[in-house]
Amino acid sequence: MSGNTLGTLFAVTNFGESHGPAIGCVIDGCPPGMALSEADIQHDLDRRRPGTSRHVTQRQEPDQVQILSGVYQGMTTGAPIALLIQNTDQRSQDYSDILQTFRPGHADYTYLQKYGVRDPRGGGRSSARLTAPTVAAGAVAKKWLLEKFGTTFKGCMTQLGEHPIGFEDWSHVPHNPFYAPVADVSHLENYMDSLRKAGDSCGARIRVVAQHMPVGLGQPIYDRLDADIAFAMMGLNAVKGVEVGAGFASVAQRGSTHGDSLSPEGFEGNNAGGVLGGISTGQDLEVSIAIKPTSSIMTPRDTINSDGTATQVQTKGRHDPCVGIRATPIAEALLALVVMDHALRHRAQCGDVVMPLSPIPAHRGG
Amino acid sequence: MSGNTLGTLFAVTNFGESHGPAIGCVIDGCPPGMALSEADIQHDLDRRRPGTSRHVTQRQEPDQVQILSGVYQGMTTGAPIALLIQNTDQRSQDYSDILQTFRPGHADYTYLQKYGVRDPRGGGRSSARLTAPTVAAGAVAKKWLLEKFGTTFKGCMTQLGEHPIGFEDWSHVPHNPFYAPVADVSHLENYMDSLRKAGDSCGARIRVVAQHMPVGLGQPIYDRLDADIAFAMMGLNAVKGVEVGAGFASVAQRGSTHGDSLSPEGFEGNNAGGVLGGISTGQDLEVSIAIKPTSSIMTPRDTINSDGTATQVQTKGRHDPCVGIRATPIAEALLALVVMDHALRHRAQCGDVVMPLSPIPAHRGG
Amino acid sequence: MSGNTLGTLFAVTNFGESHGPAIGCVIDGCPPGMALSEADIQHDLDRRRPGTSRHVTQRQEPDQVQILSGVYQGMTTGAPIALLIQNTDQRSQDYSDILQTFRPGHADYTYLQKYGVRDPRGGGRSSARLTAPTVAAGAVAKKWLLEKFGTTFKGCMTQLGEHPIGFEDWSHVPHNPFYAPVADVSHLENYMDSLRKAGDSCGARIRVVAQHMPVGLGQPIYDRLDADIAFAMMGLNAVKGVEVGAGFASVAQRGSTHGDSLSPEGFEGNNAGGVLGGISTGQDLEVSIAIKPTSSIMTPRDTINSDGTATQVQTKGRHDPCVGIRATPIAEALLALVVMDHALRHRAQCGDVVMPLSPIPAHRGG
Amino acid sequence: MSGNTLGTLFAVTNFGESHGPAIGCVIDGCPPGMALSEADIQHDLDRRRPGTSRHVTQRQEPDQVQILSGVYQGMTTGAPIALLIQNTDQRSQDYSDILQTFRPGHADYTYLQKYGVRDPRGGGRSSARLTAPTVAAGAVAKKWLLEKFGTTFKGCMTQLGEHPIGFEDWSHVPHNPFYAPVADVSHLENYMDSLRKAGDSCGARIRVVAQHMPVGLGQPIYDRLDADIAFAMMGLNAVKGVEVGAGFASVAQRGSTHGDSLSPEGFEGNNAGGVLGGISTGQDLEVSIAIKPTSSIMTPRDTINSDGTATQVQTKGRHDPCVGIRATPIAEALLALVVMDHALRHRAQCGDVVMPLSPIPAHRGG
Repeated sequence: MSGNTLGTLFAVTNFGESHGPAIGCVIDGCPPGMALSEADIQHDLDRRRPGTSRHVTQRQEPDQVQILSGVYQGMTTGAPIALLIQNTDQRSQDYSDILQTFRPGHADYTYLQKYGVRDPRGGGRSSARLTAPTVAAGAVAKKWLLEKFGTTFKGCMTQLGEHPIGFEDWSHVPHNPFYAPVADVSHLENYMDSLRKAGDSCGARIRVVAQHMPVGLGQPIYDRLDADIAFAMMGLNAVKGVEVGAGFASVAQRGSTHGDSLSPEGFEGNNAGGVLGGISTGQDLEVSIAIKPTSSIMTPRDTINSDGTATQVQTKGRHDPCVGIRATPIAEALLALVVMDHALRHRAQCGDVVMPLSPIPAHRGG
Repeated sequence: MSGNTLGTLFAVTNFGESHGPAIGCVIDGCPPGMALSEADIQHDLDRRRPGTSRHVTQRQEPDQVQILSGVYQGMTTGAPIALLIQNTDQRSQDYSDILQTFRPGHADYTYLQKYGVRDPRGGGRSSARLTAPTVAAGAVAKKWLLEKFGTTFKGCMTQLGEHPIGFEDWSHVPHNPFYAPVADVSHLENYMDSLRKAGDSCGARIRVVAQHMPVGLGQPIYDRLDADIAFAMMGLNAVKGVEVGAGFASVAQRGSTHGDSLSPEGFEGNNAGGVLGGISTGQDLEVSIAIKPTSSIMTPRDTINSDGTATQVQTKGRHDPCVGIRATPIAEALLALVVMDHALRHRAQCGDVVMPLSPIPAHRGG
Repeated sequence: MSGNTLGTLFAVTNFGESHGPAIGCVIDGCPPGMALSEADIQHDLDRRRPGTSRHVTQRQEPDQVQILSGVYQGMTTGAPIALLIQNTDQRSQDYSDILQTFRPGHADYTYLQKYGVRDPRGGGRSSARLTAPTVAAGAVAKKWLLEKFGTTFKGCMTQLGEHPIGFEDWSHVPHNPFYAPVADVSHLENYMDSLRKAGDSCGARIRVVAQHMPVGLGQPIYDRLDADIAFAMMGLNAVKGVEVGAGFASVAQRGSTHGDSLSPEGFEGNNAGGVLGGISTGQDLEVSIAIKPTSSIMTPRDTINSDGTATQVQTKGRHDPCVGIRATPIAEALLALVVMDHALRHRAQCGDVVMPLSPIPAHRGG
Repeated sequence: MSGNTLGTLFAVTNFGESHGPAIGCVIDGCPPGMALSEADIQHDLDRRRPGTSRHVTQRQEPDQVQILSGVYQGMTTGAPIALLIQNTDQRSQDYSDILQTFRPGHADYTYLQKYGVRDPRGGGRSSARLTAPTVAAGAVAKKWLLEKFGTTFKGCMTQLGEHPIGFEDWSHVPHNPFYAPVADVSHLENYMDSLRKAGDSCGARIRVVAQHMPVGLGQPIYDRLDADIAFAMMGLNAVKGVEVGAGFASVAQRGSTHGDSLSPEGFEGNNAGGVLGGISTGQDLEVSIAIKPTSSIMTPRDTINSDGTATQVQTKGRHDPCVGIRATPIAEALLALVVMDHALRHRAQCGDVVMPLSPIPAHRGG
């Protein structure tokens, strides 16, 4: 399989460039008989949309999704679902100087060397804009998983630059532009304002969770549930690290504390992050990702020209000073897509298995 | 594709259980015309082999590999290469009590619930023993990549439990049982001895590197080179986190420092870890993984019986007190397999591309 | 992989329904650097288009293709190429009676039983209209193969109903509505006219050929070049049989005549149809397919209602009295897609092989 | 995916060469909880085995299968099932002259040109011996399909060289070496004896059937059930043609006769061969294949040397004068593997669909 498809059975093929006529995806393998309309998808697209606060890119894109196929009379038919999003805010611009230099931290150099050509308009294929179809497909997966298993997905920011963000309550997340689970985000706003003034950017850490998970998803060797989660998350632009459960903290743990003990009331902890031996336990999936600072900054950087001589580059235009700010709904979508795919894979092979035990309650403290 | 195959074009299908007659793999898609013998593979298998120091499991397995197919007169033919490793040290044992309880941190529970049955002998399919075929396949990939591009792979331990391990020199790695890049490992030996006496286990952090990388490997959306690295690493038993380049440290970095600037002499740093936009830059691939503490420990743990009642479990038998100790050659193999697969994928699509620029030197400070 | 993608490396994902807003496909894996415009694709679409003679459906669809992505400044970039064709001639109609009965020979019954729902509008997903995106993708493959290897594709009708069609010359093919390689098609026109008057339909036999083939394409076991050809052809609506080379005639041949002997001037025949051991010989690929008579006919047929009671059904509307008439460009496209995919697969694995011999001339009599 | 795997979810990866140490396969994706032993597999292997009559190769191979993994206490566990068959009758021989010439109709030339090297021993990878693992895997699929749906597979020869074989009764098939459904095969024996004396070979036509099929298997576009059947059959050595249902005869049929009408008692015919719109109807799957005459014959043939000069080649050794004679169990296995894979794929996507109608009886005349 070529590189632009995510998933084996719930397979999402992504297409488009930032400043082409349209972007979108084809979802192949969606179960038939599920009610689906554009409104079901639009909500998550709106959460990802640019231009909604002063802390993100000011590009104005309605990101209106259109269902081209696979739905008849408001119901999925089992045929591929093609989703289309028109690009409406492509400013015409002279890209010839961008074609001459390589922005540090950017894909300019690698695209050119790999393909021999590159589409420089707004980042072309490497633009974060291409996460919109992923979010749209994720909304379809979320809907099916909610109806089938009651599974829900949510995420929040846990660090912005050098500022860790404590956890107060999930209810705060929709009420600030950072997806921060805290009531007061003024220090984060001040931080972003000063960063923007400095012409610089910062990274972020995002936590994403699946709750009410079915037990038994994942394949033990290679195609583990956590392996596919890591794949999907690291496949998101700017992600440099992925953790499941205790993650890197598990290095310094002892076996006697890391392994989540069990009682008749359930698991006594969730260091596992909801996966043991590559298979879901029914506990919450707990995933954390590291997002690097945006590469496109106003600060001049040393680089070279396409003829190999030294020069400097300074990015103008509308860029997110922290791409992590809009990453939460994308990470949720990716997690949902992985769970969806494994749910279908699981019933393909194990559809006749009668689970020997009642599922253990997810987490005593949960 | 079912779950036990790694790779798209250099596809490794793994089979076997810890105490079955044999384990092994089939490598499909290996280029023809490469000299290959069992000796080329055995070296890495010996590095992974148990029983080589007091700090690892005392199970004695020669792990002798046999090439069953795909090689004629010492040369790969392009046909699938089947590799077989006989299991020789399966102690007969009564597993009925293990079948009754679920070891905390273990795959016992998830296997049973997923499949309805499980093979309890020595961990069955979830045993770390099943990494041997991966190491064997990795040796084939390493050989091809070395001959084709000069690419080399190496790894070392960078943390053992709560003890960070500084970097002195790669040359120390083969001379201690920990793959530690330091001359004196006595503190690590003492730490492991005390841990073993305490009947407990610890985690580890492993760094793995590919050098002399070709430029241009990876697909920008979904099938990024770093995404497939994360997939392969998180698919290894006990891994709970994966980083590429600056990893989680990039969260607190600024864009003005994270993005590796370029000069005519090359990249000025490697926060990218050798990947930009999902595509290899030619810099070293830098990957770091977190390995959780071994779940099978002598310390009694709270758990439940298969009828749901509370009980305790204590693992006897021959187990690694830190599975991370033998993980370095496995992580190297996984990295090699991912690079190999992407090397073939790259030339499938881009075999006619003449790279517009001479590759930038990998890293000034290299 | 889900079911609507053709090809492994040159992967075409098809979407749409006959009377939905649009149909199309995403081509993933196209090599970068090839000049490509809509005009390059439109030619083959026009050859497949309905409404061009009185012998095909009178539905009027311009089938205008739009490239949504993957092309920048007239050049493929290596990113997915999304192709969109708007549906413009969907007549509104009451489908409730169609939903109640199952047309003999049609997919009505199987779609309903498989998916629980079906889109009845114009055949929905089972409409022959869905071959248009395949033809469009095939045009891209043809262009690349022509530029890279000089490979060309052509096809013709060799039988219409009970009338075998002799071979006079390829030059006649574009000058009659049947793709017949003969100067005079009046008997075919009369036959079709009488069939249409009788409210009945007939089958056809189509021959499709690839010339100037590269040597070495195909995998010997399972993924043979001829196996993938058979897969692609049998995957076309209404196809009930596929032959390569001598096909079913080879049953009655002797080994001493079937096996094409070789001389310094080349192969002495082409019973092989261009494939030996699953791998292309460099001779012409010779493929023949059987297309069943159209199921939608004006003649009343016995069938049952969705409640299981006996009834009759008679199809109205605009249908091809012989779907084989428009099948030639589709079969060419399918052949091109298979060859394209195997060309990429071949160089992935065997890109370093220097062919030991000069290729044998394709066919002495050729 | 590389080329030696058949199936998406029930994925069989084949390895080995005719005269290497062993041949075999890995079955990935088998549902857990099915009783399985070597005896369940051996029966079909024995039906395919050489040396059982004077009309097939005299090579003596016990073809004893060994299950290496995936079965615990006689039950499939859901882990990959590795099957191994030792090669025991490899006669040592000088292959240097075979390496110099290309047998007409053989894969000698294409293997050499594709891979640059080839294993000439007994045909290497292109030997019909490599169908044994397919037959073994097919036996596993057959067992599951029988237990799950009651589906059964059978096949017979319908033509030997120029001699069509009428159908008397299935019960005759196991009682003659040709799998002929007739009581008296003396004319076939005489024909084969004269052919062998003449140093020549002939082709055959094989019919294979699946009965008690589940409704709804297959994907409408590209991955149709019949497309995958055609793929699997054409992927078998020496097959040059595949038909489903009426096959090539459908070309001359009218729509009013081809389309199988329906009554409350069931389908009135089976021109469809059990597939409509790519999806199984529940009728018998009816497949027919053309097998070319064996290429390795005692009659001298014109060919060229590896230096391009003209020469003659005459095959010695133990070869089947009609490879079609042993093809029936192989074709059954391939059909079972395709049905198995689609059964798993179907429940992955449509596992929640409640079939709107009771399945129509398969065939009134059946």
